[in-house]
Amino acid sequence: MRPESAESTASAPFAERTTVEQVEEGLALAPKFDADGLIPCVTTEAGTGDVLMLGYMNRDALQKTIATGEAHYWSRSRQRLWHKGKTSGLFQKVVEIRIDDDQDAVWLRVQVAGSGASCHVGYRSCFYRSVELSSPRDEPARLVFVETGRTFDPKDVYGSVPNPTRL
Amino acid sequence: MRPESAESTASAPFAERTTVEQVEEGLALAPKFDADGLIPCVTTEAGTGDVLMLGYMNRDALQKTIATGEAHYWSRSRQRLWHKGKTSGLFQKVVEIRIDDDQDAVWLRVQVAGSGASCHVGYRSCFYRSVELSSPRDEPARLVFVETGRTFDPKDVYGSVPNPTRL
Repeated sequence: MRPESAESTASAPFAERTTVEQVEEGLALAPKFDADGLIPCVTTEAGTGDVLMLGYMNRDALQKTIATGEAHYWSRSRQRLWHKGKTSGLFQKVVEIRIDDDQDAVWLRVQVAGSGASCHVGYRSCFYRSVELSSPRDEPARLVFVETGRTFDPKDVYGSVPNPTRL
Repeated sequence: MRPESAESTASAPFAERTTVEQVEEGLALAPKFDADGLIPCVTTEAGTGDVLMLGYMNRDALQKTIATGEAHYWSRSRQRLWHKGKTSGLFQKVVEIRIDDDQDAVWLRVQVAGSGASCHVGYRSCFYRSVELSSPRDEPARLVFVETGRTFDPKDVYGSVPNPTRL
């Protein structure tokens, strides 16, 4: 019985950031977390390449994502670790994790369980509206819905859980 | 002669954020900028869906991107407006702009001029390394190069311009 090994699985260290060359061209993960301890994460649907969401990870969320192969984020609105899908069943299975040049952004390619949706409003992608490029220039740009309908009713899935959107 | 009209083109207003429903389901662009006045922007290659970079925009950069159809960002390392491609010639022509559910993230789908690269290190995408999911658990995760080579030598393109990567 070595419960410590489970602990250490979840807390594998990251490499120190020592030089620009090492960060940009090195072979060890040395992520940069911002002043709030977070790194942004772009999540795309592996099959289509569509961007599903932009989330944030703290050290623990990134470590758990690597260790388990399921997307974990830090919920800024709820201020807690967020195992995506734990409430909705819409888990994100990681196909690939990439890191960018200066290692301050993560890209997850995922397959989503169930209906395939990743947006708390009920759409497949959080990016369900496009911005009109030819908008009149003296008023706010207009938005156009590019997804035709919700994949689920948030009330059915989340019940009384508060909406995470903040003004 | 109405020079003001050129001014107002670049400063089209954004909608006020009044209710969660309006932000999530409305038809007017009402972006949320963070405490530093920035909104994160995921930029993907329109043809392949690959993520090229994750940048940041201030109000001016987002307005100029909408008005001109070419990607503008705010350079955090240089603390100034950044018309992508102005130094390298690798302009990003906007195919589509999307906004997410709570309007605090932008997704640009672009076609890149010239060699098609978007990364200051010389690779096509900034995300040129993947993270090994099966890494040994007691040391930092290993990285694997997924792009086979640089598309240009940064010295040739940027000369003496300082590297923007910060430790």
